[in-house]
Amino acid sequence: MSKVPHRIYLSEDEIPRQWYNIRADMKNKPAPIINPGTMKPAVPEDLYPVFCEKPAQQELDDDTRYFDIPEEVVEMYKIYRPAPLIRAYNLEKALDTPARIYYKFEGNNTSGSHKLNSAIAQAYYAKEQGMTSLATETGAGQWGTALSEACSYFGLDLTVYMVKVSAEQKPYRRAVMETFGAKVIASPSETTEIGRKILGMDPGNRGSLGCAISEAVETAVKTEGCRYVLGSVLNQVLLHQSVIGLESKAALEKYDKYPDIVIGCAGGGSNLGGLIAPFVQDKLTGKANPRLLAVEPVSCPSLTRGKFAYDFCDTGKITPMAKMYTLGCGFKPSANHAGGLRYHGMSPILSQLYHDNAMEAVSVQQTKAFEAAVMFAKLETILPAPESAHAICGAIDEAVKCREEGTAKTILFGLTGTGYFDMTAYSAFNSGEMNDYIPTDEDLQTGFDELPHVNE
Amino acid sequence: MSKVPHRIYLSEDEIPRQWYNIRADMKNKPAPIINPGTMKPAVPEDLYPVFCEKPAQQELDDDTRYFDIPEEVVEMYKIYRPAPLIRAYNLEKALDTPARIYYKFEGNNTSGSHKLNSAIAQAYYAKEQGMTSLATETGAGQWGTALSEACSYFGLDLTVYMVKVSAEQKPYRRAVMETFGAKVIASPSETTEIGRKILGMDPGNRGSLGCAISEAVETAVKTEGCRYVLGSVLNQVLLHQSVIGLESKAALEKYDKYPDIVIGCAGGGSNLGGLIAPFVQDKLTGKANPRLLAVEPVSCPSLTRGKFAYDFCDTGKITPMAKMYTLGCGFKPSANHAGGLRYHGMSPILSQLYHDNAMEAVSVQQTKAFEAAVMFAKLETILPAPESAHAICGAIDEAVKCREEGTAKTILFGLTGTGYFDMTAYSAFNSGEMNDYIPTDEDLQTGFDELPHVNE
Repeated sequence: MSKVPHRIYLSEDEIPRQWYNIRADMKNKPAPIINPGTMKPAVPEDLYPVFCEKPAQQELDDDTRYFDIPEEVVEMYKIYRPAPLIRAYNLEKALDTPARIYYKFEGNNTSGSHKLNSAIAQAYYAKEQGMTSLATETGAGQWGTALSEACSYFGLDLTVYMVKVSAEQKPYRRAVMETFGAKVIASPSETTEIGRKILGMDPGNRGSLGCAISEAVETAVKTEGCRYVLGSVLNQVLLHQSVIGLESKAALEKYDKYPDIVIGCAGGGSNLGGLIAPFVQDKLTGKANPRLLAVEPVSCPSLTRGKFAYDFCDTGKITPMAKMYTLGCGFKPSANHAGGLRYHGMSPILSQLYHDNAMEAVSVQQTKAFEAAVMFAKLETILPAPESAHAICGAIDEAVKCREEGTAKTILFGLTGTGYFDMTAYSAFNSGEMNDYIPTDEDLQTGFDELPHVNE
Repeated sequence: MSKVPHRIYLSEDEIPRQWYNIRADMKNKPAPIINPGTMKPAVPEDLYPVFCEKPAQQELDDDTRYFDIPEEVVEMYKIYRPAPLIRAYNLEKALDTPARIYYKFEGNNTSGSHKLNSAIAQAYYAKEQGMTSLATETGAGQWGTALSEACSYFGLDLTVYMVKVSAEQKPYRRAVMETFGAKVIASPSETTEIGRKILGMDPGNRGSLGCAISEAVETAVKTEGCRYVLGSVLNQVLLHQSVIGLESKAALEKYDKYPDIVIGCAGGGSNLGGLIAPFVQDKLTGKANPRLLAVEPVSCPSLTRGKFAYDFCDTGKITPMAKMYTLGCGFKPSANHAGGLRYHGMSPILSQLYHDNAMEAVSVQQTKAFEAAVMFAKLETILPAPESAHAICGAIDEAVKCREEGTAKTILFGLTGTGYFDMTAYSAFNSGEMNDYIPTDEDLQTGFDELPHVNE
């Protein structure tokens, strides 16, 4: 067996041709999505006014194990995929750890993150269905950027509701989306009923992903030829993101490696769910038993401090309800937190896996994540997104444990993107002005009090 | 022969182990560098107070064809090299051209550009020589960022003089350098004699690369254990950048391809000189006869409108003099021009090749370059640096000619970096506020009037 190179590249032929659907192998399926109008499990037709038809079918399909990736999607994947799997030799050396650390780098495209994997799929399905425009929200801006690229590629118009605090922190991110032709609106805005309502109650509201989702959904259902798309949380998104894990596994297999532990940052769950997908399959089918670890921010701790309950996916309570770990759709994430891990809920698939003890979760403080990010940047010459920094932090902690225990574990983590657009946050960290935020139990209770009552 | 994939990756083993020195194969060598103190050709010892010894020797060595790349440098190269060679299938399709367009993408690292190739080498030699710090200048910020990374990796302190207009246009670029631990000073500054002199004469001076060079050199020679490093123009830099061309050639050879034309943007010449290096060798040794094309901005046209004459490399006239195409070291580039192609001179090697008709040059307007950049971004999902946009523009023009002539030429161009830090310029372009600048003959004459008199 030859020495593992710094970067393992697959060939273009090795881009996956099918997405893998975790649900097909889950004994306990995620609880059904509830239509709040009927309070009954949603059927595809319930979703058609909001989502395109094929993604809506994928959303509700718990049984089909593999979905063919449309040829047009594969063609656009080829521009930036396969993404490299990188052995973190320098990080290992600096940590003096016997652990072998690998990371899957998904920032190797202009959007700068893994979000493009699902953006391409969703834009393609819209085009195929004859739609002319899409509406979406974006938090840190990664999803909006990715979708702008995909819409530009497929010739669709796009309106992006960008969480106001992010729009302020990241003026240049907005310029990237506009360069790709998107219309960007800071949320909450005066352009929707729900936006006006929120601003009416709280004129200083700096936004949340939940609120931006409400505005985008409202715009989609009110606009002819327009549908709504979402970059995380949804089952369909985890399905599309399975290319991350499938490629990672294939790259490791080239050198006869298998991870003892797989680590990803967790906001809505899109990257983590995609990264761990084939390893969950191995676990659920008894082929292997890797540890799977979600790393979330202390400031928005949906898995580690949330409730496993039905909740709306948005602040405006106009979306269907999903059973997930949630802080309550009224939870207002701290504005001081950099990056995209600010969503009140967590992917229903990951929530169920966590509930069934198939996945673990830890939370880390923002400053600790940035310490890890700066260390990583200096050693590996990739300046990571704050989201990714949480995964790096988790990987470093595990590698240090390996040093203490003298065990040479194989660690795989997801490097979801680059931090080029998060330099305001890095500046704050560098100058010692960044601080941490720990929600009190009372802060969390406010969100829990608003949870809807659903008879299961 | 199998179909060429979108991205051709070499393996880690295929990273070049030697740099190629174009001068060894040139019949007409570049004219010697002149020590302005003695007015005689410089010897290595003249350069030692400013440069580290090994790079100084490389600078003056016209004969050694290949230099071994130190093992420590190769180790750091492995983090991001080999860099991908990409077939621009989408661009070809959009242009409806029979041409085959390839680009070497050097933005696949945190510094976001090709500059890292020489930064690593120069930082390594400083470390090896026992230096504790380096001083440099940066225009658009790419070189400063790359050197910050390299210095951080090798444990050296770094002071970066950043051209004031760029520092203003790119606040986040500064934050990246500071994240890697560099001290960044906007130039002209009050920290040097030459800076104070320039500000005394012209308090509103917004800087130039030539002025920042003067400040950095002054700092290096006045500081114990400090040396000066430069990211372009110098022979040693072209030597280090030859990895770009060597890898490009090797990747094309895998599919039995050879370029009919090689295109690069030209500021000081570091990328272009590196990209064309092995193709120049083929040309000079009669093995092949590819066209080699420099694309420079209309606003700073050193090759297309400059004089081939001895000149200082800096505005302060404290560096040695080199014979090159130059606009005169007193030439003040238009502040409206985005990006890094704002230097008054051009690599002496490239200047000589151009003078001997071994290389061609064209100039393009800024807005035309940005049109090409936006088109490219939408098709290829890489948002290019404004510098790279000039090369894209040159490649598109050649591909359109192929369509008109019905010839299926193979075009290779250098995509030097990403435009993430140039969003101010993209915003100006998107909103129609970007304008072009064409220097008048009188503007240029001001620079020419100051050229030093050297008896050759």
